[in-house]
Amino acid sequence: MNTSEQQDTIFPKGEKAPTDYFTGTAWVKMIVPNDTSLNCQIGNVVFEPGTRNNWHTHPGGQILIVTQGRGFYQEKGKPIQLLEKGDVVKILPGVVHWHGASSDNQFTHIAVNPNTQKGIVEWLEPVTDEEYNDHN
Amino acid sequence: MNTSEQQDTIFPKGEKAPTDYFTGTAWVKMIVPNDTSLNCQIGNVVFEPGTRNNWHTHPGGQILIVTQGRGFYQEKGKPIQLLEKGDVVKILPGVVHWHGASSDNQFTHIAVNPNTQKGIVEWLEPVTDEEYNDHN
Repeated sequence: MNTSEQQDTIFPKGEKAPTDYFTGTAWVKMIVPNDTSLNCQIGNVVFEPGTRNNWHTHPGGQILIVTQGRGFYQEKGKPIQLLEKGDVVKILPGVVHWHGASSDNQFTHIAVNPNTQKGIVEWLEPVTDEEYNDHN
Repeated sequence: MNTSEQQDTIFPKGEKAPTDYFTGTAWVKMIVPNDTSLNCQIGNVVFEPGTRNNWHTHPGGQILIVTQGRGFYQEKGKPIQLLEKGDVVKILPGVVHWHGASSDNQFTHIAVNPNTQKGIVEWLEPVTDEEYNDHN
């Protein structure tokens, strides 16, 4: 991590993400735990280079706010999108997708999960190396 | 703004905030407009030094994520809280409050408004200089 990236960091790395749902190493800092007043869970996620989460859906949708690095977002059946600092992704309820770092950059986003009364996440299968590398 | 602060900036300043609801100069960049799928509106707000919004409430609550600078948050009848980068504020539905910059620092936060099906904001009276300065 260079000096510029260190200055961009808003939150500490937090806890290691569960290996069941990630390929590679990611870190999750829960900044707003779910509750029944706000119905909104917010976490900060740091993906080490090459790391991505499994395909998954959010019953209440999700919004990603990119704060550092370079990463990818893909909805099933669509091309992989490159993400950089300041990019915002709106993920509608039930849309199958994954996100993660590019192969040679760390990647950090804030993940906002609204409408948690409908559920938070449903995990599916890992993103294969072939799927991950299909962005050229 | 010094070099370190410039590197912290995630979003451009956006549009000037409506003077009806702000004392001083603030800038709002809407990053997620409201819709009926996500029920979640997200904006980035930059407050120039000394600027604050009016007292107000959110029918669906609000979460503030501080990304730069130094500012204040106050709930009616409670002491003013100092906010800095990495601080997160959970504001429950209906709680009367204000937020803004300190007198000598710019201040930036992301404002997450969940549960917008219940409404987004109800504006009240301006924060007086006496109220604003009651933080020593």
